[in-house]
Amino acid sequence: MHHAAGFIQDLAVIMALAGVVTVLFHRFKQPVVLGYIVAGVIIGPHTPPFELISNEETISTLGELGVVFLLFSLGLEFSLKKLFRVGATALVAAFVEIVVMLGIGYGIGHAFGWSAMDSLFLGAMLAISSTTIIVKALDELKLKRERFAQLIFGILIVEDILAIAMIALLSGIAGSGSVDTAAVLITLAKLALFMTVSLVVGVLVVPRLLDYVARFNSQEMLLIAVLGLCFGFCLLVIKLDYSVALGAFLIGAIIAESRQLHAIERLIEPVRDMFSAIFFVTIGLMLDPTVLGRYAVPILVISVAVIVGKIVSCSVSAFVSGQDARTSMRVGMGLAQIGEFSFIIAALGLSLKVTSDFLYPIAVAVSALTTLTTPYLIRGADPFTRRLAAAMPPWLAGLFGAYTNWVQSLGKGGDASIVLGMVRRIVLQVAINLAIVAAIFIVISYFAAPLERLLSPWLDTVRARQAVLWGGALVMAMPFLVAVYRKVKSLSLLLAEVSVQPAFTGRFTAQIRRTLAELIPAAAMFGVFVLVAALSGAILPPTDLLIAVLLAAAILLTLAWRWFVRLHARLQIALNETLDRGDDRLGH
Amino acid sequence: MHHAAGFIQDLAVIMALAGVVTVLFHRFKQPVVLGYIVAGVIIGPHTPPFELISNEETISTLGELGVVFLLFSLGLEFSLKKLFRVGATALVAAFVEIVVMLGIGYGIGHAFGWSAMDSLFLGAMLAISSTTIIVKALDELKLKRERFAQLIFGILIVEDILAIAMIALLSGIAGSGSVDTAAVLITLAKLALFMTVSLVVGVLVVPRLLDYVARFNSQEMLLIAVLGLCFGFCLLVIKLDYSVALGAFLIGAIIAESRQLHAIERLIEPVRDMFSAIFFVTIGLMLDPTVLGRYAVPILVISVAVIVGKIVSCSVSAFVSGQDARTSMRVGMGLAQIGEFSFIIAALGLSLKVTSDFLYPIAVAVSALTTLTTPYLIRGADPFTRRLAAAMPPWLAGLFGAYTNWVQSLGKGGDASIVLGMVRRIVLQVAINLAIVAAIFIVISYFAAPLERLLSPWLDTVRARQAVLWGGALVMAMPFLVAVYRKVKSLSLLLAEVSVQPAFTGRFTAQIRRTLAELIPAAAMFGVFVLVAALSGAILPPTDLLIAVLLAAAILLTLAWRWFVRLHARLQIALNETLDRGDDRLGH
Repeated sequence: MHHAAGFIQDLAVIMALAGVVTVLFHRFKQPVVLGYIVAGVIIGPHTPPFELISNEETISTLGELGVVFLLFSLGLEFSLKKLFRVGATALVAAFVEIVVMLGIGYGIGHAFGWSAMDSLFLGAMLAISSTTIIVKALDELKLKRERFAQLIFGILIVEDILAIAMIALLSGIAGSGSVDTAAVLITLAKLALFMTVSLVVGVLVVPRLLDYVARFNSQEMLLIAVLGLCFGFCLLVIKLDYSVALGAFLIGAIIAESRQLHAIERLIEPVRDMFSAIFFVTIGLMLDPTVLGRYAVPILVISVAVIVGKIVSCSVSAFVSGQDARTSMRVGMGLAQIGEFSFIIAALGLSLKVTSDFLYPIAVAVSALTTLTTPYLIRGADPFTRRLAAAMPPWLAGLFGAYTNWVQSLGKGGDASIVLGMVRRIVLQVAINLAIVAAIFIVISYFAAPLERLLSPWLDTVRARQAVLWGGALVMAMPFLVAVYRKVKSLSLLLAEVSVQPAFTGRFTAQIRRTLAELIPAAAMFGVFVLVAALSGAILPPTDLLIAVLLAAAILLTLAWRWFVRLHARLQIALNETLDRGDDRLGH
Repeated sequence: MHHAAGFIQDLAVIMALAGVVTVLFHRFKQPVVLGYIVAGVIIGPHTPPFELISNEETISTLGELGVVFLLFSLGLEFSLKKLFRVGATALVAAFVEIVVMLGIGYGIGHAFGWSAMDSLFLGAMLAISSTTIIVKALDELKLKRERFAQLIFGILIVEDILAIAMIALLSGIAGSGSVDTAAVLITLAKLALFMTVSLVVGVLVVPRLLDYVARFNSQEMLLIAVLGLCFGFCLLVIKLDYSVALGAFLIGAIIAESRQLHAIERLIEPVRDMFSAIFFVTIGLMLDPTVLGRYAVPILVISVAVIVGKIVSCSVSAFVSGQDARTSMRVGMGLAQIGEFSFIIAALGLSLKVTSDFLYPIAVAVSALTTLTTPYLIRGADPFTRRLAAAMPPWLAGLFGAYTNWVQSLGKGGDASIVLGMVRRIVLQVAINLAIVAAIFIVISYFAAPLERLLSPWLDTVRARQAVLWGGALVMAMPFLVAVYRKVKSLSLLLAEVSVQPAFTGRFTAQIRRTLAELIPAAAMFGVFVLVAALSGAILPPTDLLIAVLLAAAILLTLAWRWFVRLHARLQIALNETLDRGDDRLGH
């Protein structure tokens, strides 16, 4: 028991002080997160007279666990259904906000003469608002159920995804040292592929597994199974060189589709609260207060930039996408702060050794300032809107009102929007099936060497082994390829119907439509073949064998077409069931 | 995020495997604790082909946290009221079991030619039964509400306290290398003093603090406050050179008196389950399976000794203290295993570097074997009792039945047992008050140097400073001294009434009684003065000043006697209120 006394002592100091601080900050109605950071500063090595922590490394390791659990429960609160429903406003506002804040951050960094990498990370740090702080602020102001709050949550969901992508991108850029457009696109494509496949496979497998576990009716077992899933998936993600944050978030989003979500949230909350407290304290530990004094000007400038930039970008984009002025202003003011993601990004820069040391304390200080202003801004949104309206010339206010009405009327469109909805659904399904096909070929090429070794006793030429592997991958991918073909075909029928109008083509209408409906799927499948061939580099057999394999596949297809269709339909039904079940649950 | 990847990877391996194992062991109805240990062995460094853990130290540090949380929730389930109520059977059975098993363990170690320290630790490892395993077994067999189960829990409570004392003692003996009776007694006295004072002060302060925290209605805040209290108290305990286990258990027992107990248990459970899983996995990590083969004979001998020794010692002592044969046998068979405390004691021996390496795997193996047999033994208790009764000559069975009736009739005694109850209560109150008095003088002598430095600007001789410090301690202790005097006085009145019978003393009865009732308290207070003088070595002023201080105290006493009485009464009421409240809660 004695060799760990140092560590337990460190933890004891942290938890004891965190306990005092949480009571004090609650008492004086300040955000507890700030309290934890202050506790960290007090304990930390930069403030005399005490150096209370003997083994900072172990503690900051525990803090990392805080990030895992924070993102995991963010994932639990996230839901695929919710994502499909967030709507245009959330997409537009989140995207505009991130681009604008990236630009502002980069510009400010540049203006202060910081390095390009520092400026880039600064931009990334300012881009994402803080879910934790917004949820707590809206909770305390009792506004969580209002419409604008739902909009804010939608924006936060989109931001979270983009943030995860940004973390992956920044790691890539920091590694190569430069922004290579092609590399960025490949990174994003790989990321999208990985996320799609994990989500589809995860939603098919994990909720069923948890249903099984829940049958034993043991809280302990459910918790350990969930933690096992969470950390097991993180392990996979680490092996694929993505960040743990991504893994924790994704597996959280997958588990969110399980029927046991409520029980799981109740079990995970204490663990998350404990580790996130440690995480925020470790942020304080790293904070050198003298740096704050030295960088007072940048801190103030950046804080003002965060508040003004976020209010303007979010309000304007919410307004442009059809929200009324009052809601838009509330959304903008609610999002005007930075938080946990900024710390994660700042820590990423430090651990990759590409950013300067001062960036971290600046992020913390700006987050502290903007966190303090958030409740006042939310409360001040309505008076501000009224004043703005009063100060506006009447014709301008009228124009704005007319715009809002016009945009809102657009959303309620007739036939066109129904067709658009159908097209969108088909495209999404094609994309998901293609992602799975791609994943199958990528995984098999990745494990080509051990698999070929496995085959070598039976097949003595490399060519033969490649043919077998590639053929195997093709068979596994077949249900999804069949599905892609069928979806593309129905899409092209639809498009042919809509685009080829008898008024122009006269008596050839039917023929042209039929030709289009045949040609488009054929062209699409050729495109798919090229894609698959490109992805399966290591196992692509030489042309003669390739043709032989394709012929065999064609024969298999004609024989078992209906079986493939049925298999795919069953998978899709299972997926939809899980998602709908989650939906029912939210309805309660 | 990347520097901690190694650690998170380790944790991921552990949690993922623990997740699989918990499902498998539940499925096949085996104790999950065993599963965790097996998972640890698989991951561990002793089993080829994988060495899956890169940083064993950090993981075993996390495992230590498992011990903290295990003992903390053991403390939460413990309650002072329950302790006062466990009754004679629990006290006798626990004490007999521990002494017998210590003896058997030491004897076995000696017989195998192991060192005295190894044999002593073996005895200690065999002494305590496993609360975790018993609770789980009774739960699964749906016997938790039966009378014998309540008896078993009573025995476990007494065992837990004795185990905590044993851990403190073993640390002492391992440090000095020999069993010094005086040192042992001093260690035990200090331990009892520390426990009494912590419990009294804790029960007065902590539940009120948690009531205040609970008013904010935030789960996170309550959790962090509880963790802060837990670790803060552990910090104090570490500083006093006691084990973290003791601290966690004590603060748990204190928090158990709070009105928020249920909410706290719900919050702590997931944290405990996570860390105790890690703890049990780390036990497996340390286990070298080849050692098991090499020590197969001792393992079998010790397992049989644990089962037979515990069944016989517990059954017989339960029977002797008045339980019927069937209940006694059930109690004995329920307690026939070892568990988490054995691992803690084995780990203690290893970390103090006084035991051999093979003791740890033996403890784990014996625990595994006896854990597996526990459910069968509990189920087999009744058939076994029936067979035993059938095989017994009728006159013997009759004798046993008569004995049980006789002992049970004793408990329902008249006046004598009422007087005994009163005496017991008064003695307990005197002991608690004396403990607080002693603690005041010890704490002030401990901080004599800094306190004297604080006084030096005003008082320039050492004598004067000592007089002031000692006088101050005396004033602080006065309410408790007054209480001791009053309790001893009422005790001596009671004793005089009972022991001095008019039949013997005739017309002097009243006088003798009055003399006794005056003399005993005076003698007792002189004894208290000697005790206090001995405890306050560093601050005891020279005789002339001492007399002056005592005179001043006497004047203060005559002036403020009633105020001291009232102050003490108020403290006692507050204490009883907290304890009774806990009692009401359990009644629901």
